[in-house]
Amino acid sequence: MNPQEITVKMALQSWDTQVSRAAKVFDSLNDEQLWQEIAPGRNRGVYLLGHLIVVNDGLFKFFGLGDRLHADWDDAFLRNPDKAGLDFPSTPVLRQAWIDVHAKLAEQFKSISADSWFQRHQSMTDEDFTKDPARNKLSVLLNRTAHIAYHLGQVALIKK
Amino acid sequence: MNPQEITVKMALQSWDTQVSRAAKVFDSLNDEQLWQEIAPGRNRGVYLLGHLIVVNDGLFKFFGLGDRLHADWDDAFLRNPDKAGLDFPSTPVLRQAWIDVHAKLAEQFKSISADSWFQRHQSMTDEDFTKDPARNKLSVLLNRTAHIAYHLGQVALIKK
Repeated sequence: MNPQEITVKMALQSWDTQVSRAAKVFDSLNDEQLWQEIAPGRNRGVYLLGHLIVVNDGLFKFFGLGDRLHADWDDAFLRNPDKAGLDFPSTPVLRQAWIDVHAKLAEQFKSISADSWFQRHQSMTDEDFTKDPARNKLSVLLNRTAHIAYHLGQVALIKK
Repeated sequence: MNPQEITVKMALQSWDTQVSRAAKVFDSLNDEQLWQEIAPGRNRGVYLLGHLIVVNDGLFKFFGLGDRLHADWDDAFLRNPDKAGLDFPSTPVLRQAWIDVHAKLAEQFKSISADSWFQRHQSMTDEDFTKDPARNKLSVLLNRTAHIAYHLGQVALIKK
């Protein structure tokens, strides 16, 4: 493996680790527990499940991999805070969406060459990218990996 | 920059981002708030501050960068859970240790060449590393970065 390929392997392992850990924590919560607050007055587990689905679903667009699966959920889980009075999809629908989004991402990630991971993402101009080649697709993946970890630490607080 | 250098830059940026965010959250808490639980019955902020210091302090050894600054704190913040009845250093000492450990790490990280980041860390044999070159120093840094994010999401829950 060359350094680029090693890097992509590392970053994808790091991503997979957080996605798997999060899946395990969400699976360990029954529906009632999922609707509990992570701490008094804070977000509910179900909001964080939706939030992570929506943010990670955004990677399809970000990486030019085609359409998002759930672009219509941004209002509920991204543009508005929890308990804003918006309807949420049902718990089974959310649980299935978690699986679908991450399975499709894993599949699509395989089609991105090591070279392409080091290229700019869709929200960046060629000019900006020339100035800072570290702002590539892989750096977005690293950020999103840390984003999962951040909320995972919170979901893990729900009492079982 | 070659791919290795770009990768190191990305990973260090990702690390710096989490360290800075965590510093900001800890700084925003006064001593009384720092000693509060992140959620009822859970870890206190002060334990997580100590825990992150100790785990990140471990990187000096892991990367062969010399002695740790606070190896004697492992009992309080790593080998035992919070509220195990062990004495903690005072809050000012902990706050200063956070600064010292991360300043020294930042300084030492500069001395690691891009090539060396892709080499094995101290807990790994040459043989294991040959089998999986993605288990290098940089992969440890990525894991530790996600580890900060995980607990940062929790510390952010402390009410101000």
